[in-house]
Amino acid sequence: MTLRLYDLAGAEPDRRFSPYCWRTRMALAHKQLAYETIPWRFTEKGAIASSAQKLVPVLVDGDRWIADSWIIANHLEDTYPGNPSLFGDSGARALTRHYSNIADGLVGAIFPFVALDILDHIAEPDRAYFRESREKRLGMPLETFVADREKKLPALQASLMPMRNTLKAQPFFGGDRPFYADYALFGPFQWARCISPFALLEKDDPVRLWRDRLLDRFDGLGRNTLAYDV
Amino acid sequence: MTLRLYDLAGAEPDRRFSPYCWRTRMALAHKQLAYETIPWRFTEKGAIASSAQKLVPVLVDGDRWIADSWIIANHLEDTYPGNPSLFGDSGARALTRHYSNIADGLVGAIFPFVALDILDHIAEPDRAYFRESREKRLGMPLETFVADREKKLPALQASLMPMRNTLKAQPFFGGDRPFYADYALFGPFQWARCISPFALLEKDDPVRLWRDRLLDRFDGLGRNTLAYDV
Repeated sequence: MTLRLYDLAGAEPDRRFSPYCWRTRMALAHKQLAYETIPWRFTEKGAIASSAQKLVPVLVDGDRWIADSWIIANHLEDTYPGNPSLFGDSGARALTRHYSNIADGLVGAIFPFVALDILDHIAEPDRAYFRESREKRLGMPLETFVADREKKLPALQASLMPMRNTLKAQPFFGGDRPFYADYALFGPFQWARCISPFALLEKDDPVRLWRDRLLDRFDGLGRNTLAYDV
Repeated sequence: MTLRLYDLAGAEPDRRFSPYCWRTRMALAHKQLAYETIPWRFTEKGAIASSAQKLVPVLVDGDRWIADSWIIANHLEDTYPGNPSLFGDSGARALTRHYSNIADGLVGAIFPFVALDILDHIAEPDRAYFRESREKRLGMPLETFVADREKKLPALQASLMPMRNTLKAQPFFGGDRPFYADYALFGPFQWARCISPFALLEKDDPVRLWRDRLLDRFDGLGRNTLAYDV
């Protein structure tokens, strides 16, 4: 049975930008599993009600509805042990969890740069929901939140120094080839380039070169999607 | 032959506080290797000249002088393969390198809280060297650098959220038991408590509870050292 993935989409059905869904899509490709994606919008909570929560990614595997990118990754690893491992080996799974949490923090760090671009790209029915829910959380208008993003960029880039240092020493966080740790950290950067023309990374930044290597994986899965060339 | 470790000391020879040396001491204990430490002060560059650089930790293993905590960890893993693995397994070594780089970043993040306390605890000949070299790098007096540290604490604690989230889900970054990834991140916190009475972590912070679990390892290696109970 084909796996199905509910995947966040913008107004254009092919604008797939969720940092969490990107983790899962890279993980599915890594596991060499066939799947189809279902474009999903923020306000379509009913479509994923069987997952007993309100966020994507949601993977449907037979009669199981599975939410949360980390839980999905573990499900894929455990359910399809004959396929290439997402974690390298058993001991590495625990070490990988923290990458997932670091990536969550990175989504928060990048959000002030792309928040208004998200609003520009999502479907009309989602816009009021997105603005209201995010402005309530932030306590300010989105326009205020993203103001002066050029001035904030050096601090973001400086915060990537540990990533940069690792990537100067090895091509992927997983070593010579990417593992799920890479896909988790890839998510926030892919999210940004799918939704925003704002360049977060300098062209020669080792973090950008690593991201580009990941864009090339799986026959260009990440590159051949609606996105900005930044 | 007994391994020898050059270990940064304060004015008191038993005040061992280097975040990098602590990684190595925990790693040596994990590998169940006997070693002796040699207290070393910032200005004693000559004593470690055989390592062809000027920083500790320096491990002397037979006729080899090895510097850099990450290189030392890899040396121990490769030279003593029959002893407990520092990385869990081969695939996890690449994933562990990034923990080491994250920990380096954490040293930088904690430095504004403990810089002046370091000056108070190091040996008299080291003080002028330390103040001059650090103030040149910082571009300001140490007193200015550490001013208002109470006000800066919430931002530091907020930055630990990814660590906190991982530690809510598993007792160590390595999973059920610590690996080198844990020792790397432990270093900055042990450095702080060896040199400063300033409490960086709330008593119920999962990061502090994890640190305390590491203090208990190896018969209290980290706890039974000259340090503050913070």
